[in-house]
Amino acid sequence: MIIGVAGGSGSGKTTVARRLVEIFAEPRIVQLIAQDAYYRDQAHLSVEERQQINYDHPLAFDNDLLAQHLSALRRGESIEQPIYSFLKHTRLDETHSIKPAKITILEGILVLEDARLRDLCDIKVYVDTDSDERFIRRLSRDMMERGRSLDSVIDQYLTSVRPMHLQFVEATKRYADVIIPGGGNNDVAVGLLVARIKARVVEMSQS
Amino acid sequence: MIIGVAGGSGSGKTTVARRLVEIFAEPRIVQLIAQDAYYRDQAHLSVEERQQINYDHPLAFDNDLLAQHLSALRRGESIEQPIYSFLKHTRLDETHSIKPAKITILEGILVLEDARLRDLCDIKVYVDTDSDERFIRRLSRDMMERGRSLDSVIDQYLTSVRPMHLQFVEATKRYADVIIPGGGNNDVAVGLLVARIKARVVEMSQS
Repeated sequence: MIIGVAGGSGSGKTTVARRLVEIFAEPRIVQLIAQDAYYRDQAHLSVEERQQINYDHPLAFDNDLLAQHLSALRRGESIEQPIYSFLKHTRLDETHSIKPAKITILEGILVLEDARLRDLCDIKVYVDTDSDERFIRRLSRDMMERGRSLDSVIDQYLTSVRPMHLQFVEATKRYADVIIPGGGNNDVAVGLLVARIKARVVEMSQS
Repeated sequence: MIIGVAGGSGSGKTTVARRLVEIFAEPRIVQLIAQDAYYRDQAHLSVEERQQINYDHPLAFDNDLLAQHLSALRRGESIEQPIYSFLKHTRLDETHSIKPAKITILEGILVLEDARLRDLCDIKVYVDTDSDERFIRRLSRDMMERGRSLDSVIDQYLTSVRPMHLQFVEATKRYADVIIPGGGNNDVAVGLLVARIKARVVEMSQS
């Protein structure tokens, strides 16, 4: 079973996805596939050109490879996941071997934007958090964890994150089977997904 | 466990609630409490005055009694539910005896509007359907099942249903733990609730 978890930057979608992975960590029932690992390799461009690319746009992602990998996992095959360097905007030479698990969580801002990815998801979740809360979370994270300046965070947010969110991310809410308001601390919504995953594991063990 | 299911007129909330009741009908695990049964008795008003009342406004409901009844069911006590005459806008003399069930679904346009009702709900669901689809469903139902004219349906929609929806119903989406887009035919979302109810029934049988 594949569960797609989409939502804007700072929505709490990663927290929701990680909570599900942690709850089913032992034995390893649920695994996480982050769309971020499938950013396109920009090695053919100069460093300046790489910095011009809009990484919040759907075309920044190699969804061909992501769809192939999800299909492989679904067939019970292992995959060699690219390791992306966010510093250089290129793929490293090594890859990350991932074995299939009973449940795969596909997490990323635009996992519901590509029809192939949507069709591969058995449950399509959109984590919906107000834009001010999303901005505040992003601001805290980028300033505290990544040492960025207030001006640079605001500039990137207004020129790229926000317009791409409105044009592409928000639009995929329409495809969701279920919308989770408020993000990662929504215990009731996480509880629904946990119950569904448990039921699926029981179904799989009986068939 | 009490599950509140709110949403606009024509959203499909009743379909979601009824599907849950049907799935767990034998043995009777889930029961439905409709907020509609708790319309205030307007017997003290003339027939003309009764027709002036805005039945889409929160004050049209006797939420005091509804909250008392939900608390009683939660304590394991039976209730005597009023039977409301939509024709006369009054309560009938007889009542409807309802025994407690493991799971109670509280369904209605404004069940998330009253803080006491919200606090009694373990899971707060909002069924979110586009306004055009909601109007079309309401139109079909009122013309076909209730023999009303096109003009009267549109008039009631524009003067009462729509403004009350925007002012009160839509505003309660903020309180939902989970939002179900598209209404009653959303099998994936219903499947999440079914899995959660089954898990709760197992918990109750073990404690």
